[in-house]
Amino acid sequence: MRLTRQSNYAIRTLIYCAVNDPGLSRVADIARAHAISELFLFKLIKPLVESGLLETVRGRRGGIRLGRPADEITLLDTIRLTEESFSMAECFEDGDIACPLAGSCDVNAALREALGAFFNVLEGYTIADLASKRRSLRERLGLSFEEMEPVLIAQAAN
Amino acid sequence: MRLTRQSNYAIRTLIYCAVNDPGLSRVADIARAHAISELFLFKLIKPLVESGLLETVRGRRGGIRLGRPADEITLLDTIRLTEESFSMAECFEDGDIACPLAGSCDVNAALREALGAFFNVLEGYTIADLASKRRSLRERLGLSFEEMEPVLIAQAAN
Repeated sequence: MRLTRQSNYAIRTLIYCAVNDPGLSRVADIARAHAISELFLFKLIKPLVESGLLETVRGRRGGIRLGRPADEITLLDTIRLTEESFSMAECFEDGDIACPLAGSCDVNAALREALGAFFNVLEGYTIADLASKRRSLRERLGLSFEEMEPVLIAQAAN
Repeated sequence: MRLTRQSNYAIRTLIYCAVNDPGLSRVADIARAHAISELFLFKLIKPLVESGLLETVRGRRGGIRLGRPADEITLLDTIRLTEESFSMAECFEDGDIACPLAGSCDVNAALREALGAFFNVLEGYTIADLASKRRSLRERLGLSFEEMEPVLIAQAAN
């Protein structure tokens, strides 16, 4: 029961982009802030871009930004893209099942219900919620206040 | 997001003992029914015995049985003993946390709430619930009806 490394850093990347909005975020800066390789981050970003959670802007001053408003991206949207599998046991999968209990067993239904409850909570949290402590998050990520527009500085003084 | 092999077979072992109650279950029979090694099963059973979910009866006709009534053992009781960790991310653990967001980040609280919802569902299911299709489960596990007492045969005709 642990999030994959992909999920963990996908959430962090979306939070980074949210607190850096409306600025474009550079992959090199996100990678440095979280002490991960740019290659890992590029691979990680790919499905997020494909699904529209992030968008890329090309060019010398290019970068990435959220593909839709932060309050329209849930934690569940993110994790669905980055967890390898939600198969809690063999009987969640298609194909031949070796477990002799399959067909008479209610464990699968209990686990599905539990997973549903887990998902429901994650669906209730958006990237906007998770990025709401904008000021202190920016400090921790090494994003200076100087680069922010005055209107955002006012918003950030929370 | 997958149960460990330990959790998976611990649940199966408890169901086996429940549908074989009041008989004693032999480790060799459970291992054969689920096509796993006896050594793996012995290791798996150890924490279940230590915590009182199972008890062992020594001797030539010995074996294992539930340590308390099946309706007093929840799926959560079981999984708590057999999952290695419920640390969904680094920030669930003690010690130095490398994540720069720690302290300003609400992801940990969201994940804890989701995990709590997952646990709540598992707490609502007992081994008795999961072993309620006694007749078909016994068939699938290779447990004959002939060994059952008449009163149990009547109960099993569900």
